[in-house]
Amino acid sequence: MQVVETIAGMRQVRKQLSGPVGFVATMGCLHEGHLSLVRKARAENPSVVVSIFVNPAQFGPTEDFASYPRDLPRDLALLEKEDVDIVFAPSVAEMYPPGFNCWIAVAKITDRLEGASRPGHFRGVATVVNKLFDIIQPDVAYFGQKDAQQVLVIRKMVADLNMDIKIIALPTVRESDGLAVSSRNAYLNDKERKAAPVLYRALCLARKLWERGEKDAERIRQRMWEVIEEEPLATVDYVSIADPETLEEMDGIRTPALVSLAVRIGRTRLIDNVVVG
Amino acid sequence: MQVVETIAGMRQVRKQLSGPVGFVATMGCLHEGHLSLVRKARAENPSVVVSIFVNPAQFGPTEDFASYPRDLPRDLALLEKEDVDIVFAPSVAEMYPPGFNCWIAVAKITDRLEGASRPGHFRGVATVVNKLFDIIQPDVAYFGQKDAQQVLVIRKMVADLNMDIKIIALPTVRESDGLAVSSRNAYLNDKERKAAPVLYRALCLARKLWERGEKDAERIRQRMWEVIEEEPLATVDYVSIADPETLEEMDGIRTPALVSLAVRIGRTRLIDNVVVG
Repeated sequence: MQVVETIAGMRQVRKQLSGPVGFVATMGCLHEGHLSLVRKARAENPSVVVSIFVNPAQFGPTEDFASYPRDLPRDLALLEKEDVDIVFAPSVAEMYPPGFNCWIAVAKITDRLEGASRPGHFRGVATVVNKLFDIIQPDVAYFGQKDAQQVLVIRKMVADLNMDIKIIALPTVRESDGLAVSSRNAYLNDKERKAAPVLYRALCLARKLWERGEKDAERIRQRMWEVIEEEPLATVDYVSIADPETLEEMDGIRTPALVSLAVRIGRTRLIDNVVVG
Repeated sequence: MQVVETIAGMRQVRKQLSGPVGFVATMGCLHEGHLSLVRKARAENPSVVVSIFVNPAQFGPTEDFASYPRDLPRDLALLEKEDVDIVFAPSVAEMYPPGFNCWIAVAKITDRLEGASRPGHFRGVATVVNKLFDIIQPDVAYFGQKDAQQVLVIRKMVADLNMDIKIIALPTVRESDGLAVSSRNAYLNDKERKAAPVLYRALCLARKLWERGEKDAERIRQRMWEVIEEEPLATVDYVSIADPETLEEMDGIRTPALVSLAVRIGRTRLIDNVVVG
């Protein structure tokens, strides 16, 4: 496994890789969710590239860029075990040199959900993924369905900008109590960790209500709110039942629907989703 | 010479081309300026692709998208003579399908000059050039220095998004009386055509003043205004003496400087520039 820190170095190494090249973009602090993407990439491609880059452009000014967990030696050991070919781990200065000022904006679907709660977040995501795609030139890129809106934004960017890259989304990996694995779970103290599965409980309730024939999306949202608010450490940011393509909120349930939420557990903001129908 | 109208078709044809691939993006209605780019691309590359696409996204709502001159049969005959390999001539629906909504914004340098006079223009330019680069995957792309700010915007986009493409700018081609060749010259009636060289006269005056040691940029701008306003059919949009990288207006002349202007001759808006120093 080769670790490359510069764009010029990555370009050079890329020329030697036999295709197709599978790619997983990460912010490090790797967990089973990332590793499921890496394993799929490994199984499906002769060459696998993983990037590790905590992207400042996707954090708001009051968000956790500085404190976001980083552990490169541990990440590299994990990726070595998965038989990854290349790890691209550039510095912030390498990716955003002084005077950097070109941005990718996917409009409309980014006005909602995470985009509404985190202004500028998806501009940062789309821009860094676009740059990584241009540098690494993968044939296939793997993303986690946990960040459902991110997957949509990246698919839209790839389609609209005619990037010749296949985007594959893989199911959310969960702890045994249902909590979606996430780097931010590391922020939770013991009490908060015990409270955190309330996100998945609310999602399961939505699925159950839907399966039992509840047709009123607003009623399902209310029931989800109630479940979450019963948990003293939890505060709802949003609860959504939306069209999985446009992200427009639904009145009546049509299938399929993207049920998603963002909840603060203490000071840690977590997101999760399921698709019903 | 092969003419390709679809993105899928272009991708397929691209795989057969031997590299490096030289590329010239045009809006058709080809003139000697375009042909100088095509000839350079032909001389320097085993394969040459030219695109012909009048890009609606770079026209403002009150601008001349509908009336912009189009003559595909004539353009194809000219390109055939220049021994071009592939002409990519997609429809608007092919490039901007319903729901298209992803945009490239180069900030700061687009606030000035053409960007200030034509809001949204460079967003449209950057987006379509990004798409064309992703579809055609050229190694080298050739642009005319007549659109000096466009060249800067494209260079900035390529650098910031890490596109692996070399950008070459070639000198403005002029008529014998100094008028920069441009598709929009076709809008001029006889009287206007006779008035139009006033742009180049003003630029030459700037160069002369600069060469004679005039150090006050504002004084040069004023003399340029005076020359243009003497021409009854001409109305100044802007006259600029700016840093050629940042496009910030200069007070004292430093070298090099980009001297540029936009002038209406009757109802036709023309631009031109020279670099001094």
